[in-house]
Amino acid sequence: MAKTILSSKTKEIIIGDERPFVIIGERINPTGRKSLAAEMSAGDFSRVKADAIAQVEAGARILDVNAGIPLADEPAILAQAIKLVQYVTDMPVSIDSSILEALERGLAAAEGKPLLNSITGEDERMERLLPLVKKYGCAFIGISNDETGISEDPDVRFAVAKKIIERAQDYGIPKSDILIDPLVMPIGAMGSAGQSVFRILRRCRDELDVNTCCGASNVSFGLPNRPMLNGTFLAMAIANGLTSAITNPIDPTIKRAVMASDVFMGHDESCLAWIQVNRDPSATPTPTTEGGRRERRRAQHG
Amino acid sequence: MAKTILSSKTKEIIIGDERPFVIIGERINPTGRKSLAAEMSAGDFSRVKADAIAQVEAGARILDVNAGIPLADEPAILAQAIKLVQYVTDMPVSIDSSILEALERGLAAAEGKPLLNSITGEDERMERLLPLVKKYGCAFIGISNDETGISEDPDVRFAVAKKIIERAQDYGIPKSDILIDPLVMPIGAMGSAGQSVFRILRRCRDELDVNTCCGASNVSFGLPNRPMLNGTFLAMAIANGLTSAITNPIDPTIKRAVMASDVFMGHDESCLAWIQVNRDPSATPTPTTEGGRRERRRAQHG
Repeated sequence: MAKTILSSKTKEIIIGDERPFVIIGERINPTGRKSLAAEMSAGDFSRVKADAIAQVEAGARILDVNAGIPLADEPAILAQAIKLVQYVTDMPVSIDSSILEALERGLAAAEGKPLLNSITGEDERMERLLPLVKKYGCAFIGISNDETGISEDPDVRFAVAKKIIERAQDYGIPKSDILIDPLVMPIGAMGSAGQSVFRILRRCRDELDVNTCCGASNVSFGLPNRPMLNGTFLAMAIANGLTSAITNPIDPTIKRAVMASDVFMGHDESCLAWIQVNRDPSATPTPTTEGGRRERRRAQHG
Repeated sequence: MAKTILSSKTKEIIIGDERPFVIIGERINPTGRKSLAAEMSAGDFSRVKADAIAQVEAGARILDVNAGIPLADEPAILAQAIKLVQYVTDMPVSIDSSILEALERGLAAAEGKPLLNSITGEDERMERLLPLVKKYGCAFIGISNDETGISEDPDVRFAVAKKIIERAQDYGIPKSDILIDPLVMPIGAMGSAGQSVFRILRRCRDELDVNTCCGASNVSFGLPNRPMLNGTFLAMAIANGLTSAITNPIDPTIKRAVMASDVFMGHDESCLAWIQVNRDPSATPTPTTEGGRRERRRAQHG
């Protein structure tokens, strides 16, 4: 089955349907975080550093980095944030921007094989960004909307996803370097949003054999008890084939839902990770091979 | 799509994939509940009564009743418990026993259209029990094992389910009166248990168009933080087509997972039930039409 490989300078992360679910940490994003936006604009990256370390400790295996701050020099700030994140952790990054120049600066700054977040099915975006993906040999998130907007019909969104994959292949980019994002709409505004996503995910798994990724937080917009909604949504999406998500691993409800999903997908051998984190409530779920290194870094940077 | 209709004297409950998930309350069961077993043997049904009311208040829409107490007169106790449960609530019952005589006494005692729990794919069981189902016009849970035991291969279990449905149809029992139980094994003992169940559920939905039911608590046997595991498992199973389960609605983690699943399946219109129960943490999720009646009953019997 499909394997998508991302890397930092020293570390490889594999996304695939026969492996534990991959959380891409969402926290390094100034959208809606006023003080973070102000700090990043002023060149203060202490919170970026802390968020990077905390998310990796909580189980993120890739870190999304976004620097979308109005009126700021987004390309420069994004590049700087990426360098810092890869200095304090050894994880691959997801370079998150809607601005072409920022994505390009991010790609130049990143070590290893990063994830480009994202490319829609709009012709102009594909024509400008797919050559960049090819040039840098990165992977990317393909978002299932195009010039006509976001269709409510999951089969139309699936067709857009298929188009992105075919166009990428025209540029010599393999399917294994693409994560399809089915586009998660707020369930409070559209009651069919969940079933639509589940259908696209099943079709991506069964018909295209391609990995998938979604932003999982949007689904609960405007509703109470969002962590429980986000965690349950992720479990249901994983049961339909989702292999990665951009979400907040620091939230214990979300993190536990993902870990329990790994248990039931048969991706937590002998349930050891589940047993470890639930026997001792103070323990955070960390991959054992990295514990020591992270501890040392924390001592240096903390 | 398939609709399975159960009833009490006054109330109809419909199980189907276009409706909210149906919780069958599991609590009235002396297995592993020593004091309940002792009380029921001695003719004290106060805890049965309290459990029935509490489960309905927490959202159970059918109540499983089991009287499996070693050396006790199970048929008589089961019949008495069923009568009491249907006196203090207006819900349909699930008559739960492995003893033929107890099932028959239960069927005679139950009002409305109950659920017979359960019939395996063993020839002898089918020959003895299907005529009873036909005679009483009830629905039943068909369990996907036969004389050869419980197969680890989900497709073998699916074939057993299909055999039960065909045999029932030979007796003139419609498919809509059958809930298939895919058999949930402990995930701690068998890492493939989750994926197997999900596959059987998908095949039951897509190929047989039949409703499904499972005992959801067994899956977490021997593991820590069982409510979170049970709730996540239910959400994943619902995402693969499960339409009812025998579980504990009183546990808030399980109940919230089921409610969130309803949200994402599009079965909680405008998310009203979710908003109501999560805005006011002290509120329990009760169907509004029954609130008054239950309150009065509580005043009489409480």
